[in-house]
Amino acid sequence: MCGIFGYCNFLVERDRRFILNTLLNGLSRLEYRGYDSAGMSVDGDNGIQIYKEVGKVSALRELVESQSIDFDKTFISHSGMAHTRWATHGKPSRINSHPHRSGIDNEFTIIHNGIITNYKEIKTFLLKKDIVFETETDTEVVIKLTKYLYDSQKDISFTDLVKAVVKEVEGGFSFIFKSSRYPDELVATRRGSPLLIGVKTSQKLKVDFVDVEFSEGAERATLNDPTGTGFVDVASGTTGAPHLNRSMSRAFLSEDGSPQPIEYFLASDASAIVEHTKRVLYLEDDDIAHIGAGELHIHRLRRENDNSPISRTIETLEIELAEIMKGSFDHFMQKEIYEQPESVVNTMRGRVNFEDHKITLGGLRGYLSTIRRARRIVFIACGTSYHSCLATRAVFEELTEIPTQIELASDFLDRRSPIFRDDVCVFVSQSGETADTILAMRYCLERGALAVGITNTVGSSISRETHCGVHINAGPEIGVASTKAYTSQYIALVMMALQLSEDKLSTENRRKEIIDGLYLLPGHIKEVLATAGDLQQLSKDTLSKEKSLLIMGRGYQNATCLEGALKIKEISYMHSEGILAGELKHGPLALVDENMPVILIMTQDSLYPKVQSALQQVSARKGQPIIICNTGDDNLINDYRTIKVPKTADCLQGLINVVPLQLLSYYLAVLNGQDVDFPRNLAKSVTVE
Amino acid sequence: MCGIFGYCNFLVERDRRFILNTLLNGLSRLEYRGYDSAGMSVDGDNGIQIYKEVGKVSALRELVESQSIDFDKTFISHSGMAHTRWATHGKPSRINSHPHRSGIDNEFTIIHNGIITNYKEIKTFLLKKDIVFETETDTEVVIKLTKYLYDSQKDISFTDLVKAVVKEVEGGFSFIFKSSRYPDELVATRRGSPLLIGVKTSQKLKVDFVDVEFSEGAERATLNDPTGTGFVDVASGTTGAPHLNRSMSRAFLSEDGSPQPIEYFLASDASAIVEHTKRVLYLEDDDIAHIGAGELHIHRLRRENDNSPISRTIETLEIELAEIMKGSFDHFMQKEIYEQPESVVNTMRGRVNFEDHKITLGGLRGYLSTIRRARRIVFIACGTSYHSCLATRAVFEELTEIPTQIELASDFLDRRSPIFRDDVCVFVSQSGETADTILAMRYCLERGALAVGITNTVGSSISRETHCGVHINAGPEIGVASTKAYTSQYIALVMMALQLSEDKLSTENRRKEIIDGLYLLPGHIKEVLATAGDLQQLSKDTLSKEKSLLIMGRGYQNATCLEGALKIKEISYMHSEGILAGELKHGPLALVDENMPVILIMTQDSLYPKVQSALQQVSARKGQPIIICNTGDDNLINDYRTIKVPKTADCLQGLINVVPLQLLSYYLAVLNGQDVDFPRNLAKSVTVE
Repeated sequence: MCGIFGYCNFLVERDRRFILNTLLNGLSRLEYRGYDSAGMSVDGDNGIQIYKEVGKVSALRELVESQSIDFDKTFISHSGMAHTRWATHGKPSRINSHPHRSGIDNEFTIIHNGIITNYKEIKTFLLKKDIVFETETDTEVVIKLTKYLYDSQKDISFTDLVKAVVKEVEGGFSFIFKSSRYPDELVATRRGSPLLIGVKTSQKLKVDFVDVEFSEGAERATLNDPTGTGFVDVASGTTGAPHLNRSMSRAFLSEDGSPQPIEYFLASDASAIVEHTKRVLYLEDDDIAHIGAGELHIHRLRRENDNSPISRTIETLEIELAEIMKGSFDHFMQKEIYEQPESVVNTMRGRVNFEDHKITLGGLRGYLSTIRRARRIVFIACGTSYHSCLATRAVFEELTEIPTQIELASDFLDRRSPIFRDDVCVFVSQSGETADTILAMRYCLERGALAVGITNTVGSSISRETHCGVHINAGPEIGVASTKAYTSQYIALVMMALQLSEDKLSTENRRKEIIDGLYLLPGHIKEVLATAGDLQQLSKDTLSKEKSLLIMGRGYQNATCLEGALKIKEISYMHSEGILAGELKHGPLALVDENMPVILIMTQDSLYPKVQSALQQVSARKGQPIIICNTGDDNLINDYRTIKVPKTADCLQGLINVVPLQLLSYYLAVLNGQDVDFPRNLAKSVTVE
Repeated sequence: MCGIFGYCNFLVERDRRFILNTLLNGLSRLEYRGYDSAGMSVDGDNGIQIYKEVGKVSALRELVESQSIDFDKTFISHSGMAHTRWATHGKPSRINSHPHRSGIDNEFTIIHNGIITNYKEIKTFLLKKDIVFETETDTEVVIKLTKYLYDSQKDISFTDLVKAVVKEVEGGFSFIFKSSRYPDELVATRRGSPLLIGVKTSQKLKVDFVDVEFSEGAERATLNDPTGTGFVDVASGTTGAPHLNRSMSRAFLSEDGSPQPIEYFLASDASAIVEHTKRVLYLEDDDIAHIGAGELHIHRLRRENDNSPISRTIETLEIELAEIMKGSFDHFMQKEIYEQPESVVNTMRGRVNFEDHKITLGGLRGYLSTIRRARRIVFIACGTSYHSCLATRAVFEELTEIPTQIELASDFLDRRSPIFRDDVCVFVSQSGETADTILAMRYCLERGALAVGITNTVGSSISRETHCGVHINAGPEIGVASTKAYTSQYIALVMMALQLSEDKLSTENRRKEIIDGLYLLPGHIKEVLATAGDLQQLSKDTLSKEKSLLIMGRGYQNATCLEGALKIKEISYMHSEGILAGELKHGPLALVDENMPVILIMTQDSLYPKVQSALQQVSARKGQPIIICNTGDDNLINDYRTIKVPKTADCLQGLINVVPLQLLSYYLAVLNGQDVDFPRNLAKSVTVE
């Protein structure tokens, strides 16, 4: 929902201009996660200075530049943090934006991504202590609690203070804390929301990992306060596992063990870090990371049956900054639509042998026979990723003959649907950090099911916690409306179905047909992209002033309709809806008249006659559908406006048909002056429930 | 899609006024099946007279009354037929409406419900024979073919002629034929669309069944016509089953075997027959019924492995005409909404023991243990019936712990989804004649799955062909937009889950809670109905001029949102869409601003905090939601417009929450001057794919 970014330097001299710029740049990279307001917390000349502004990061930058401060002042050691917001509690406004603070002296400040579910309870407790609140946000409650606990304990370390706070807090979050009581330090923690730390130093590190300290007494305290003295700390009764006896975390040290020049970058995701360093460390849920005096220590809130690894290893990112820049395109989304001929190749690279018609998915090695024996395959995802499951369900069923089921992660969790040991659950998420999908994954893991991850983000929670999976390798996707990730997820799932069925001789010809279709796919997508001018004209002439739009199709194209309608909803704010053509007569047909805009997907597969009959129903009601059809389908040329697309194997046709809908949604948004890469109300990764 | 009606009298003197009135009345009863145009075929003074008019049956009645014909002329024997249309091929117009004819002399006439899928092929064949067409309809092709075959064979009986026609035709249909070549006769046949025959006679019948004749040579002929002489009749190669040797069908005879005064009524459903007689006979697919000289004979197109019974029994209907009349209400739909406190009781009557907290569903007796052992339960339905499955899925999963899956029948068939012997498939359809659901049922039966039917129509195809099931006993539903059938289907499915789980001790308290909720349900629904005035006012003040509406909720209420949105689509033509609140942040939230009307379902179950968070998101985007909440939920009173409903068990709450949405849709349609019982473009039962 929000983007958070932190920066610490130690024994590296930086002026204030550099520090502010680094924070603002970090926010710009994270802006796709939220952009209704932004703010920063840095050292001023008298304690902590907070800057906040409503709107995009550029507005915050203008605010900072207008300040009469000494930009040339240098710091040999400094900690700063910044936040770009997407509102969940309280409207976008300067007062509601982050950092939040403990009081007007800015003694404690916090930035936060996520939602605190028990904030009302904590607030009630604090109100009884006569603590005054400035805002309606859940975040402010956390920082007021921090101050309250600090005041009641005083000689506490910054780490222990945050530990005491976090054990009171329920929900999904990542936090960074900065305090004038602990100058040049930052403490960061997460539960459910992603957070990683980049490490930059010119010296060789003695170790490339950080040991984790497991703390005592981290069970949740109770807010019942019979003594009136503050929180009662309830020590946990469980002990015993050997790693719980470790009492110290270990930081990076230079080879000779002495302090060394070093910089740390904390961020919600790698795109804000990669331009500074490629050496990163991913925090786990309930890790509490402390940075101070150049050292990084990681502590853990101890929970029962905590089996997490006892060290966090530094990994090397393989992402290039250039990959996340817009290039010559006006918008990231447009760039990503046009990248598809290349991104689909990247998804298939090293996996599809087009001569031998063979698929090799390294990430599933060792698990194929287990998957083939499954009672059923349950696909679980949200939004566009869900549509990629819907699009490939039929080919999965056809090739594998295993019963399949597809679930929206939130609904699946709401129902607490029964899951068994012999189920295979496939989790699809571009970011690998979608909160509902992660929770569903953990729910299924607890029940003993095999978990397969399909994500675009190496090192993401889904990538790390599933048993096996496929990285879609589509490259970073910045546009909030997902495009190239959809086509790559689609291909990854098709490849999975192909590999699973390679033991069935009866599918041989069909598998060849599909693999041949995959070979031709990049060219087919290019053909559609070449018609962008026509689609722009069509948007202008017929759709841009409409309020509603129905997109109809059936079979393999049901998913394409839903995905096309979602794109249009997301960025052009037109009320578009995907309609299963087979359900038309059970209700939606009542909406059709000469004024209701309709797009009908009518490419040539075995259901073509049935879609023709839907076309006749729509036409009989004076509907004027725009038809997506195959090049060479002469039945339709004279009577209807058409969008022509090349023909391919039926189960791959959706990969081609979705492209004109992506382009239509893009042009509709541009024509109506919408901010394509930053649609209102939406963020790129939904990392809270 | 269309309604068809036929009437024959023999040895019963009737004047022309009576005959025309009987046909027009029959159409009025069937008008809910289609009403864009209507027509009749009767004997004029010189051959067959056809009357047709665009619009409702009342328009046809006016046309007939304006004719200068001898209304007093009597007939001792006469055959007539009538049709009310809902367009599938060709726009509503006089020329496209039924009956269709062989030529301007009205020599052969036909009425038809359904779709012919190979009509283009047949038309191409006939065009080569220089046959001229008046319309673009599939139906005209059939009657032109009839005439062509008659001309090439001449001395053929009416039955054999129709048999020759039907074996060329593919698709789903019911037909009635009337010809001046065979005066006072009718031939009727069906494949996939319902058709039944009422028999009225004052004398005692010697038999209460009709034997069926199995004909030779009924394999499909080929349209290849190398000789140029017409169709080549390809005799089937299969013989052998003993019943195939029967060569004569048997008609009704009076006890002494002599001809007797008798009248026949043919119709698409019983509602058009019940006012004349309660003795009816249901035709099966590929039955060809011939009525002439007071006798009814049934023949069959022989197909390989035809195992259909060799006689058709006369059944006695238990439906009262009063049940299908509007009473004091303005519209059937309104009447049916208000009937719900009673109809839900009828669904539970004799099945729920509220003291002992026990459920007994007689229709499942003998099948419970098979269902409990199922690999999975697959619910298959269309439209509103599908929503009843969605609404009860969670309680099914919770109580039975069997994996469930729900499928839209058309999509399920499009995918040819794998089905196994150990699957249990539940088919839900109000009419029991929904074409896609029937096809899905047969698909599953072929694969050996256990089929369970949930329908409102005793004697319907689903009722007859499933292994076991539950009749919902909601009484006839006439309003095209289903209301009381939804709540009764919902209860039937809950009762099924309750009965299936009665062997699990762990569910005892939960089952008691639900059965207690069922006990209170009629009173709860009455409470909601008592607020109709407020809902009418709300519709007027806030929603009636809107173009779009989003209805949001999650968990048990996801189905309520989809069902509410469907009602509004169906009868008020407003573009309403049900949105799963858990998916809001994955796209739909972009639609929300101060102008987008939103209804949020926020009754108090375990997901209430999560829906609150959806409310905050909507409010933060300046949305002004109307909230459906429980009476006594004081959190919301001051800040939002609310619709209050009584609280019940979480899994039954949807039964109550849907009622205000039914009423809202009704008032929106009335306020906008729409024809509530006859929404444009829709028919009550969708008896074609």
